Amino acid sequence: MRDVAIYGTGMLQVSEHWDLSIIDLAGRAALEALNDAGLERVDALLVTNMLAACHSTGQLNLGARVADWVGLHGVEAYKVEAACGSGGAGFRSAWLAVASGAIDLALVVGVEKMTETPGPEITAGLATAADADFEVPMGPSFVALNALIMRRYQHEYGWPHEAFAGFSINAHANGARNPLARLQDPITAEDYRKARMVSDPINLLDASPVGDGAAAIVLGPAERVFPGGRRPRVLVAGSAAATDSIAIHDRNAPLRLTAAEKSAAAAYAMAGAGPGDIDVFELHDAFSIMSALSLEACGFAEPGQGPRLGDDGSILPGGRIPVASFGGLKARGHPVGATGVYQLAEVTRQLWGEAGACQIDGARVGLAQNIGGSGATIVTHVLRQA
Amino acid sequence: MRDVAIYGTGMLQVSEHWDLSIIDLAGRAALEALNDAGLERVDALLVTNMLAACHSTGQLNLGARVADWVGLHGVEAYKVEAACGSGGAGFRSAWLAVASGAIDLALVVGVEKMTETPGPEITAGLATAADADFEVPMGPSFVALNALIMRRYQHEYGWPHEAFAGFSINAHANGARNPLARLQDPITAEDYRKARMVSDPINLLDASPVGDGAAAIVLGPAERVFPGGRRPRVLVAGSAAATDSIAIHDRNAPLRLTAAEKSAAAAYAMAGAGPGDIDVFELHDAFSIMSALSLEACGFAEPGQGPRLGDDGSILPGGRIPVASFGGLKARGHPVGATGVYQLAEVTRQLWGEAGACQIDGARVGLAQNIGGSGATIVTHVLRQA
Repeated sequence: MRDVAIYGTGMLQVSEHWDLSIIDLAGRAALEALNDAGLERVDALLVTNMLAACHSTGQLNLGARVADWVGLHGVEAYKVEAACGSGGAGFRSAWLAVASGAIDLALVVGVEKMTETPGPEITAGLATAADADFEVPMGPSFVALNALIMRRYQHEYGWPHEAFAGFSINAHANGARNPLARLQDPITAEDYRKARMVSDPINLLDASPVGDGAAAIVLGPAERVFPGGRRPRVLVAGSAAATDSIAIHDRNAPLRLTAAEKSAAAAYAMAGAGPGDIDVFELHDAFSIMSALSLEACGFAEPGQGPRLGDDGSILPGGRIPVASFGGLKARGHPVGATGVYQLAEVTRQLWGEAGACQIDGARVGLAQNIGGSGATIVTHVLRQA
Repeated sequence: MRDVAIYGTGMLQVSEHWDLSIIDLAGRAALEALNDAGLERVDALLVTNMLAACHSTGQLNLGARVADWVGLHGVEAYKVEAACGSGGAGFRSAWLAVASGAIDLALVVGVEKMTETPGPEITAGLATAADADFEVPMGPSFVALNALIMRRYQHEYGWPHEAFAGFSINAHANGARNPLARLQDPITAEDYRKARMVSDPINLLDASPVGDGAAAIVLGPAERVFPGGRRPRVLVAGSAAATDSIAIHDRNAPLRLTAAEKSAAAAYAMAGAGPGDIDVFELHDAFSIMSALSLEACGFAEPGQGPRLGDDGSILPGGRIPVASFGGLKARGHPVGATGVYQLAEVTRQLWGEAGACQIDGARVGLAQNIGGSGATIVTHVLRQA
């Protein structure tokens, strides 16, 4: 198995892109990544997406369409899906393909177009990430399922709602420095406290906004420099994925992300690293409760103690474990099937020193963790400067 | 890159499974494949599916749900999709994962549940395999797009409709010997001639039936024997995928499957084999015109001459290039996202000598080709006895 590196990245702003189709979005991100890598051609294209089949564009087989748009005519292409964890899963598939030696250069493109679709249809679409037989028929939306987890967590560990404010304040502060963020306005603790309730206890400032967006990454063998291409400077040091039951009531430990614990442990082991080595962590803060659970699962806090890191400055850009450095899902935005690719592209730019106003000083090792469902499919990657 | 072998297969009858959910279907095929392999555990699960998100079950993130049902709790899992080419693409992903060395045992499960969904909704679902911007808005169904190809082919090469009868007669004759086939009734040339028109010139006996079904395959390293496990006897000798424009009007050669030509050439090269070495060919006969085009693309006939092989006995079980040996899409049935896995499981059973009444004598090398869209994403595999 050969070492794999990242050659280039591309990201569009997460926004309402009324003038761009889902194919335009994916294609632009792909071209930006190819241009960043200094390459015109790859051997495989993996598209990651959750909702295009029915909830926005009525287009399956996105791989072939995006390949065609980008000018990668004839190239191998298909889609990888694991609900909101699609991006991480697609990146991992691309990593496996390059690591095998069968593929030299792979392009993974995460894309989602959500804002043209009516809200109720998006809500129904997002609920396909939950258990369609034993959760959805009971009536909860996907937000409501996360709200049940948050409420139980507060009950078990005694945290008031305000204890989660730090995650959202940090994400918005970082997003305000990222021109590609969906939300670029800082928020205060009072804003958080007063925010409109969505699904008690999750309020509007606990929840990430959906949006239209696309991000892309070119992967290739670490030891190669392709003619005209950029020298790869970021290695995929660790890659792992794991699952837990989709239905929360089926889980042995509903307040722990066991799939995150498993995949983080495996990715750390592969990288020969641990929580103490991580300089920046793009976590899956779809809801603020998920920030706490992810930090716990990845070894930065004991179970039940995640909110402390949001409160004591640990997660801030200068802190012990900076998270959501480009705004996270909360402020950069959460175009669901694309999010995992955004996270990995952001960590890459941090390690390249190309994070602009979002730069974390001295970032050499980064962690990205992408969650599908309310904890069902979790993919964890460790990236490292070459 | 290490050699990869097939350890076990599982297939359900393609039928109307009113008593089984999509998760039940996938789970049963998965358990049958694990049992066939003599294994209880794998390292990764790949589910292939096209329509579950909106058109039957409202379930995305199928990987995690199927893993849970099968008792593979915690195992890495996600979905691969390329419309009707999903099965082949998922098998190829599993092959890449095992070839890389990162995954030892991978289980690929193709599943589709279609018969509970009203016909018009299935028709709309299948149309998501076509170009959603430049084909679907013009009104054609997916059958109609194939009908346009068939009509043009007849015009260019002068074939009457009856020239395609041989493909359907052979498929039904073979399906009649396969207890897992959707349609187990032989047909005559007169049946074919009199069949009700669907989308001129495609009649009911040119078209494959949809259905509920699931098939599964366990892949692992060729050189290993796992404790209690079966000794692998079929190698993945060649694997390749390619694309063409989804929209037929965008293709340079609308009457040729260029993605099939590319992926077949690459799979042959990898296997060190050619058309003359193939003893059995599971081709993607979603419509009879696709049989002709696939035979041409894989080197068994000159462009425009495919129907000759349906007419002169070449494709029959005792012929030069037996196709659709278990009934093909036409008679075994076409549960769209599962079909590619059925094809590969069928070729495996042929090479194992476990094809029952469908056995092709002396089959040692087999070809499987799976098509997504009307020619957009095409995945080709060469399997060989170990």
